[in-house]
Amino acid sequence: MLCEGCERMKKIIKSRTQKAGLPPGTLVHLGERREDSSRINIFKYSEENLEEKEIKIGEIPEKLPGEGEVLWVNIDGLHEVEIIERIGEIFSLHPLVLEDILSTDQRPKVEDYGEFLFLVLPMFYFSTDEDTIIAEQVSLILGNNFIISFQEQQGDVFSELRRRLRTKKGLLRRRGADYLFYGLLDSIVDAYFLILEKVGEDIEAIDDLLLEKTDSGLLREIHRVKREMIFLRRSVWPLREAIAKLERRETTLISESTLIYLRDVYDHVIQIIEAVETSRDLISGIMDIYLSTVSNRMNEVMKVLTIIATIFIPLTFVAGIYGMNFVFMPELEWSWGYPLVLLVMGLIALGMILFFRRKRWF
Amino acid sequence: MLCEGCERMKKIIKSRTQKAGLPPGTLVHLGERREDSSRINIFKYSEENLEEKEIKIGEIPEKLPGEGEVLWVNIDGLHEVEIIERIGEIFSLHPLVLEDILSTDQRPKVEDYGEFLFLVLPMFYFSTDEDTIIAEQVSLILGNNFIISFQEQQGDVFSELRRRLRTKKGLLRRRGADYLFYGLLDSIVDAYFLILEKVGEDIEAIDDLLLEKTDSGLLREIHRVKREMIFLRRSVWPLREAIAKLERRETTLISESTLIYLRDVYDHVIQIIEAVETSRDLISGIMDIYLSTVSNRMNEVMKVLTIIATIFIPLTFVAGIYGMNFVFMPELEWSWGYPLVLLVMGLIALGMILFFRRKRWF
Amino acid sequence: MLCEGCERMKKIIKSRTQKAGLPPGTLVHLGERREDSSRINIFKYSEENLEEKEIKIGEIPEKLPGEGEVLWVNIDGLHEVEIIERIGEIFSLHPLVLEDILSTDQRPKVEDYGEFLFLVLPMFYFSTDEDTIIAEQVSLILGNNFIISFQEQQGDVFSELRRRLRTKKGLLRRRGADYLFYGLLDSIVDAYFLILEKVGEDIEAIDDLLLEKTDSGLLREIHRVKREMIFLRRSVWPLREAIAKLERRETTLISESTLIYLRDVYDHVIQIIEAVETSRDLISGIMDIYLSTVSNRMNEVMKVLTIIATIFIPLTFVAGIYGMNFVFMPELEWSWGYPLVLLVMGLIALGMILFFRRKRWF
Amino acid sequence: MLCEGCERMKKIIKSRTQKAGLPPGTLVHLGERREDSSRINIFKYSEENLEEKEIKIGEIPEKLPGEGEVLWVNIDGLHEVEIIERIGEIFSLHPLVLEDILSTDQRPKVEDYGEFLFLVLPMFYFSTDEDTIIAEQVSLILGNNFIISFQEQQGDVFSELRRRLRTKKGLLRRRGADYLFYGLLDSIVDAYFLILEKVGEDIEAIDDLLLEKTDSGLLREIHRVKREMIFLRRSVWPLREAIAKLERRETTLISESTLIYLRDVYDHVIQIIEAVETSRDLISGIMDIYLSTVSNRMNEVMKVLTIIATIFIPLTFVAGIYGMNFVFMPELEWSWGYPLVLLVMGLIALGMILFFRRKRWF
Amino acid sequence: MLCEGCERMKKIIKSRTQKAGLPPGTLVHLGERREDSSRINIFKYSEENLEEKEIKIGEIPEKLPGEGEVLWVNIDGLHEVEIIERIGEIFSLHPLVLEDILSTDQRPKVEDYGEFLFLVLPMFYFSTDEDTIIAEQVSLILGNNFIISFQEQQGDVFSELRRRLRTKKGLLRRRGADYLFYGLLDSIVDAYFLILEKVGEDIEAIDDLLLEKTDSGLLREIHRVKREMIFLRRSVWPLREAIAKLERRETTLISESTLIYLRDVYDHVIQIIEAVETSRDLISGIMDIYLSTVSNRMNEVMKVLTIIATIFIPLTFVAGIYGMNFVFMPELEWSWGYPLVLLVMGLIALGMILFFRRKRWF
Repeated sequence: MLCEGCERMKKIIKSRTQKAGLPPGTLVHLGERREDSSRINIFKYSEENLEEKEIKIGEIPEKLPGEGEVLWVNIDGLHEVEIIERIGEIFSLHPLVLEDILSTDQRPKVEDYGEFLFLVLPMFYFSTDEDTIIAEQVSLILGNNFIISFQEQQGDVFSELRRRLRTKKGLLRRRGADYLFYGLLDSIVDAYFLILEKVGEDIEAIDDLLLEKTDSGLLREIHRVKREMIFLRRSVWPLREAIAKLERRETTLISESTLIYLRDVYDHVIQIIEAVETSRDLISGIMDIYLSTVSNRMNEVMKVLTIIATIFIPLTFVAGIYGMNFVFMPELEWSWGYPLVLLVMGLIALGMILFFRRKRWF
Repeated sequence: MLCEGCERMKKIIKSRTQKAGLPPGTLVHLGERREDSSRINIFKYSEENLEEKEIKIGEIPEKLPGEGEVLWVNIDGLHEVEIIERIGEIFSLHPLVLEDILSTDQRPKVEDYGEFLFLVLPMFYFSTDEDTIIAEQVSLILGNNFIISFQEQQGDVFSELRRRLRTKKGLLRRRGADYLFYGLLDSIVDAYFLILEKVGEDIEAIDDLLLEKTDSGLLREIHRVKREMIFLRRSVWPLREAIAKLERRETTLISESTLIYLRDVYDHVIQIIEAVETSRDLISGIMDIYLSTVSNRMNEVMKVLTIIATIFIPLTFVAGIYGMNFVFMPELEWSWGYPLVLLVMGLIALGMILFFRRKRWF
Repeated sequence: MLCEGCERMKKIIKSRTQKAGLPPGTLVHLGERREDSSRINIFKYSEENLEEKEIKIGEIPEKLPGEGEVLWVNIDGLHEVEIIERIGEIFSLHPLVLEDILSTDQRPKVEDYGEFLFLVLPMFYFSTDEDTIIAEQVSLILGNNFIISFQEQQGDVFSELRRRLRTKKGLLRRRGADYLFYGLLDSIVDAYFLILEKVGEDIEAIDDLLLEKTDSGLLREIHRVKREMIFLRRSVWPLREAIAKLERRETTLISESTLIYLRDVYDHVIQIIEAVETSRDLISGIMDIYLSTVSNRMNEVMKVLTIIATIFIPLTFVAGIYGMNFVFMPELEWSWGYPLVLLVMGLIALGMILFFRRKRWF
Repeated sequence: MLCEGCERMKKIIKSRTQKAGLPPGTLVHLGERREDSSRINIFKYSEENLEEKEIKIGEIPEKLPGEGEVLWVNIDGLHEVEIIERIGEIFSLHPLVLEDILSTDQRPKVEDYGEFLFLVLPMFYFSTDEDTIIAEQVSLILGNNFIISFQEQQGDVFSELRRRLRTKKGLLRRRGADYLFYGLLDSIVDAYFLILEKVGEDIEAIDDLLLEKTDSGLLREIHRVKREMIFLRRSVWPLREAIAKLERRETTLISESTLIYLRDVYDHVIQIIEAVETSRDLISGIMDIYLSTVSNRMNEVMKVLTIIATIFIPLTFVAGIYGMNFVFMPELEWSWGYPLVLLVMGLIALGMILFFRRKRWF
Repeated sequence: MLCEGCERMKKIIKSRTQKAGLPPGTLVHLGERREDSSRINIFKYSEENLEEKEIKIGEIPEKLPGEGEVLWVNIDGLHEVEIIERIGEIFSLHPLVLEDILSTDQRPKVEDYGEFLFLVLPMFYFSTDEDTIIAEQVSLILGNNFIISFQEQQGDVFSELRRRLRTKKGLLRRRGADYLFYGLLDSIVDAYFLILEKVGEDIEAIDDLLLEKTDSGLLREIHRVKREMIFLRRSVWPLREAIAKLERRETTLISESTLIYLRDVYDHVIQIIEAVETSRDLISGIMDIYLSTVSNRMNEVMKVLTIIATIFIPLTFVAGIYGMNFVFMPELEWSWGYPLVLLVMGLIALGMILFFRRKRWF
């Protein structure tokens, strides 16, 4: 397998080619089937009251909540298409929205349908069960006084938010659906820092390895992190645009006072983007050091070869001369011939070494 | 042949230089002659009725369809220029539009002529006959209640759409020409994912080969895929602008409700662009790994050479010394001389090996 | 000589430093003197009549043509400054315009002076006499019902246009000066594809050579083409802006119906830019392949050295051992000593070869 | 440790993951605890009077200063959250502002809350105690006639400003809070040049080292400086936007006459950005020289090896020939054989040397 | 010394850190003291009259010139701060303007103070005394009917302009201060081509050297030119913005008819920018050729080594075999043994040479 990034890309492409030619709004769940059965949870609250329960498909409230009340319907699991269809009918969602919810390969985007806002973005969270970071797609529908959230499977980053909903304290119960919408968005964005943390650890691990070994495995590791970063960047950049669009939006669904909070989320997204950019710079610096280290080792290898060879090749030549079998070679008969030749050899070696010293080769 | 990209480029340039100086609107078919004879098919439908037939040039309906009716004229094959001229007369198209239809080297663009919209874009589809991906240019004319489509040859991605037209169910029969226009556009864009799939497979194949061989053939293969990507990118980027222009368009030819569907097509085009960008990143990562692998192999070769040479060169020198023919060389007459020298040689070799070990060369 | 690009740059710089400090509007011909004497040609036509003749400086018509008539004055050769001055007086052109016409180093630009439009751009054409591509600067003045064109020397890309002017058929005679302006512009732009064709041929020639030799001459050739591309790009990019400016222009000099034709020219310029960009991508791909081929050859050279050296160095060492002159070397006296040693050597060589095979070195 | 940049990044990410899920406006000090106890200083001045003192939390003036008076409250140390809360109450600051003040990982930004402006930016100063450059975050609140500044610890760049406040001369006492705001901003920005100076020194030191050694330690040093630059750039770029925003601001808090001074600060920020960009160019040039020097040394090593080896290998071969023990080798018995062979060897060596000379190898 | 660019950068940084904390408008001359004493020259002219003289500080005209008259005050030398102060008083300039005039490290900018325009930009000119190109900063103040110009030292590019002022002919005397302003700007910009000429010569010199030697000195030379280009680019880019700003300006200080001339200056600045960009492309191409030449030489060195070594190593081995002292070696006693071995060696050598030929190594 090449990388997550391209696996994901392949998934997107596959699902698209499967659907090619079908009429728009055809509801087919494009993505892995992650759960056995879908679950529907609702929170219905006003400043005073709170109702929280898990319901079946038939129990989805058909009436919109009254003034001062907020309804949050959360669906875990997307493969039971009839649930999505039912909700589409009750809240009169556009067929294309339903289609987008079911295609778990969306790039983050926000769409304003007048009656409601549609936001889709990826969510990352740490699953203690599987001891790994899980990515799934969340779709949020913000209506006048309701929110519907669609997740691919159980488990999310909203537990702290639910706790705050259950207590009467805090702004959450006193403000409208738009503030809950902000709360959900903020929780998802805050969890992105998790991945940055993991990437940061990977970079440090690579940096440590760099001093020890320089095989092509390390290079592949560097590229793996690079690809993760590309993937993360592709997720966060459109999110930035989407939230900026929300801020500019003249929609009446988001109140003036909540917009200030959205600006805060926007700041966090910018921080994530900058962290990703910084990581990219770090990784490309590590890449340079890797390549330079490889070439430095090569240099050292060559130097050793050159030093050994250039010292001994002339010596061997001298020895070769006196190994010749000429009948008439006067030196051979001198009694000091042998020690003299050894001396000459020693001097040649010494000269070579001094030459290398002067060249600062060692 | 260098590459498809540059073949195409050459084609464009050639055809332009042929036409240089001719008055604008001169109808000459610029491109390969792909079919023996052109074919004209018409679909004429309202919610209730559907008429579908293949016609001759003389049978092209001269009257525009009535209220509530939609006419789709499809022409396969562009070299019978009289057909294009005839249609230009009947539907009063601008000469430059006819010229653009005949030049099968257009970059994707949309043009608003008030009475009608003109969209030209490439279409890719898998031909089961030839077992290969075929690229041709499609020109679409969207009028008030008619659509004219021009293709270079038979075979297209509209078969599913035709099936949906023939059945009474679905929105297609109930909506106007703009919705059919969307349908055609959507079918073409969806088919782009086909090429991405092929490119993805090529990238994976290269990635697998990378572990085995690193000859310059592989590099050329990498560049071939890179060029395909450049080519695809050049096709899709202007398409993005063209569809964005459609969305902004104040034309009355596209209804409000169809615009939402165009936004969906726009999203798909963005997804394709992102997939292309991701592929480019992957390919450039593969390029880095390729170059690094090549240099790592070189390193290994050099190391082997250095190890062998630096171990044996000093040993050979020692052997050379005792091969000298000096009359007075006391060591030669020692009875332990020979084993001693062998021992010394062994120690030198061992020392060298330990030195390389410490340097972590193997 | 380094390159055309920098020759041209030097020319621009030189001419500027010559003129430094002179008052603006000083008419000095900056550029090579390309012709011995200037020539003036006029076309005066209405739908019915056509007058075409070569005139002298004194014969330049002082009266603007009447309603329904179009006057095209073409000047070949810029060094007879008095002609330019005279025309400037008659048509009341701004001194800076005259100065720009005489400086044959302008980047393409369009300027609106209310009474007239001023467009300057380079023209490329194939001279059959000299069998080479010639570049010169063309300045066009578009007035209400006249056009003045200034060229550096005789020979241009307007012969087809002149032929069309002489025949009564076609739009050219029926439309105004703005349509002739479009015609001139279109002819010039269409001729750009000529150079692209030449560049394309150069690229292919380089690509073919790449498989055979990799000397630094080829690299210089690659850079020459690269520089031509830079040069072409520098010419075409500002032209794009200039024509876009024309399209946006609220000038009354260009009629609504001619604007559509300008849009067509704009499309061609975009196509040229894209072809240049594609060529750049191709060239940079060729560069990569060149560098990689060079390094692959190096690799192969090193491998051969390493294989030969590592096989024979140990063998030579073995031979060296039995060349030593020790009195006590039992192996020397064995009758099977010599064949045994040869066998050992053969085994060592075989081992080495198997080792290289396993390493996939050959 | 990899680098400051990524340490900082890690800090940001850590602090965010700690806070994930908490309601917005929860006041937790995110950052190192830098001081034991917080200090509050106030300056209250009009053109005539000046009151300066250190106060306790209970003594914070609850009444806003009168007309013509300016109040500057400076807080050193952020961990005593109750102080921040108290000030938030008195000056009715938005909870998100208080949260941002406490998070010492903000990117520079300006926010307009109508009643007050909020500016956050990093401050760098040279601490004579610790002989090092210290970075801390400063938050400035500009109200109608008050300024509140929050610093992480004692020590800042405002001492010159305080001195000017204490003297009656100068504009500072005569102008309003907005001019003091400008003064603070200007002092902070001017101090950025300090870091540029240090970076400049580092670059020069590296440049000097480059001539002497080329180990990978130097490369790491180059990358360290590169990372510092990335870090600095990330700090200054958003500051540029922030100040540009201030200039455009229609706020009534900043008077027309002070805006001109802000333009001056803006110019300084641009100068810093350009200096950073120039440093980046220098560093990347140094990088190129480094890599080229490494490869040149390699070249030289290879040349020495090649010269020695190619001179002696043929000589050794000649010696080897006459070391063969064939019974019938006529040369061996010639009385001039030995000197002749020596002569031949000398000629071979000379030929080689001349060959290398012609190749300009030394 | 690393480079001019960074020297200049250091100067800017140094001067800033010196001034840190001082109140704005503090007049300190930041820059080298270039002249011993400042000189003041005035030109006072109308269409009819011209008054030109050198004056002392006390003689600066306190009254603005009358209708139809233009006053040009030129100051050479900035260290006599009292002159600047005096002029500031008389013409009521903003303190920040005076400060900017004295800081000779400004990036080019234009500022509109309503009453007057302030333009600062670098000036380059060839000093015949010192036979070198000198760079200094020029500040221009354009008032209703006066111009004040501040230079760092004597010597400028205005001598031609002064000559034109002294003669009655030409537009200069007939037009207002804005036209003189244009004249000054034009002279300065035209002189920029001087440096481009020098850079062009440097590039050509490097290109010639490239064929001869490839030491790291050449690389440093390449980088020196690169840095000069970076420096020049940094000077000219902001100038482009500044002049574009002037063109858009609704100021009444520049008349409609002069704006056309400013457009001409703008065109020249664009030409300079393009020439700089072209030079950058040329330099980076030269860099590529340099690196490739270095690696090609390395290749050639390696090839020679490999050819020599691979030919002689096997031969030496053969010689080594027959140098062994085995008692039983039948070949040694053959009478054709020696010639046969020589023949075998010759064949081996020939085989190797043919092998290299086939590999196209030489």
